[in-house]
Amino acid sequence: MVNTTDFDPDIRRVAHLMADAARAVILPYFRALDLIADNKLGAGFDPVTEADRAAERAMREVLAQERPADGFLGEEYGAQPGTSGLTWVLDPIDGTRGFLSGTPTWGVLIAVSDVSGPFYGIIDQPYIGERFEGAPDGALLTGPHGQRSLATRAPRDLRQAIVFTTFPEVGSTQEAAAFRAVSAQALLTRYGMDCYAYALVAAGQVDLVIEAGLNAYDIQAPIAVVQAAGGIVTDWQGNPVHEGGRAVAAANAEIHAQALAILSEH
Amino acid sequence: MVNTTDFDPDIRRVAHLMADAARAVILPYFRALDLIADNKLGAGFDPVTEADRAAERAMREVLAQERPADGFLGEEYGAQPGTSGLTWVLDPIDGTRGFLSGTPTWGVLIAVSDVSGPFYGIIDQPYIGERFEGAPDGALLTGPHGQRSLATRAPRDLRQAIVFTTFPEVGSTQEAAAFRAVSAQALLTRYGMDCYAYALVAAGQVDLVIEAGLNAYDIQAPIAVVQAAGGIVTDWQGNPVHEGGRAVAAANAEIHAQALAILSEH
Repeated sequence: MVNTTDFDPDIRRVAHLMADAARAVILPYFRALDLIADNKLGAGFDPVTEADRAAERAMREVLAQERPADGFLGEEYGAQPGTSGLTWVLDPIDGTRGFLSGTPTWGVLIAVSDVSGPFYGIIDQPYIGERFEGAPDGALLTGPHGQRSLATRAPRDLRQAIVFTTFPEVGSTQEAAAFRAVSAQALLTRYGMDCYAYALVAAGQVDLVIEAGLNAYDIQAPIAVVQAAGGIVTDWQGNPVHEGGRAVAAANAEIHAQALAILSEH
Repeated sequence: MVNTTDFDPDIRRVAHLMADAARAVILPYFRALDLIADNKLGAGFDPVTEADRAAERAMREVLAQERPADGFLGEEYGAQPGTSGLTWVLDPIDGTRGFLSGTPTWGVLIAVSDVSGPFYGIIDQPYIGERFEGAPDGALLTGPHGQRSLATRAPRDLRQAIVFTTFPEVGSTQEAAAFRAVSAQALLTRYGMDCYAYALVAAGQVDLVIEAGLNAYDIQAPIAVVQAAGGIVTDWQGNPVHEGGRAVAAANAEIHAQALAILSEH
């Protein structure tokens, strides 16, 4: 792990450049889908994928120019190894179904990892103009109503907790059953937020996010943001999840333990 | 129905005054919940309800000052009849569970009705700063990226359609089965958006919203916004739904008919 004194501020500078580049590329596609799709459907044009690819290219160009020694792993164009020991792990649009539907809760995910996993991350929502950042020196939200530090919720019993997942079906039948066993004990379960749900854990609004079938680029930025705000993100057995799989993001150790006790039974 | 030439622009002026007043009252409560609830839970303080009530009072004061002859129906304080033949139907926070969770997809709902139902409506999202307006002279979105007119999607088959509902359980077991029968045929089903889903129908992003158990104040503003953008909102049998119940909001007559054919079987 990178501690506060070791944290290179150049990483922050370049991450924000990348997030700004992605915003500029993606926003013209958002909610312009119907027009484009109706005009060009015959040609097999997929505007979501096009926005994804263009944003990933834009971010890759920023990295090549600013930090050419770092590695890169993106959803659309795969891995390009570096020589610095650092890898940038990106999902240009996390929540493409939400993007396609016009909801404002998809995000641009940017993480920076070393051998132990991600230590810096951004969850950016370009339409709202909201950027959740997690770094070794703290977690910060910059949004339409200013800037504030992020901190996860204080411990409370699962019966008082708010639980999120993106799809009610979660994953396999077994995975869905495990999720429902947690959800059944919680105060409130909500759906459909993609990466935005992890941002809400960091913001102290939500106690748990439980998902399955994730890729490294889906979960690395959420890990960095949630952990910097005081939370915990592991797989359903309590192991590191930065390579992907089944993830549980928890506001604190107590609710994490309560969720794992149920999830690990299934 | 009020047609374009009969539309009194004073209604628009007062509606925006009310929406502005609600924004100012509600925003300080949003995402400040944890702090407040942790401090005052012992006293039975419910910050969501407090924001709801304060916003409804603020809107009622605007109406009393600006248009005292109009009637008022709000979620929190009930009905106050008027003498003008017009009634303002309001939900200060539609989607309190989403509000409590920190999601940016709850809304302030304001509708103006005559004997035939709502002919003017606003769906306002204070955090994003987005206002969806439906009026006899058109439908408009004013948001963080400027202003645009709203128009629902062109017809497409249900197999290509995007369907929303807020809760996967929808309502009763029968209602849930009816929803799933539509959802099973659709391209994509999404959850968790409350009134924002209707705004997305008006914005041309979503084909159908199907919900049950609604009150008049939940559905009147969505009806006005969706209809002004070219869509149709009825109950599951095709009858007026402005008094509440089971609603289907459709982008166009074709997808409305396809949804009704399935829903009315159940």
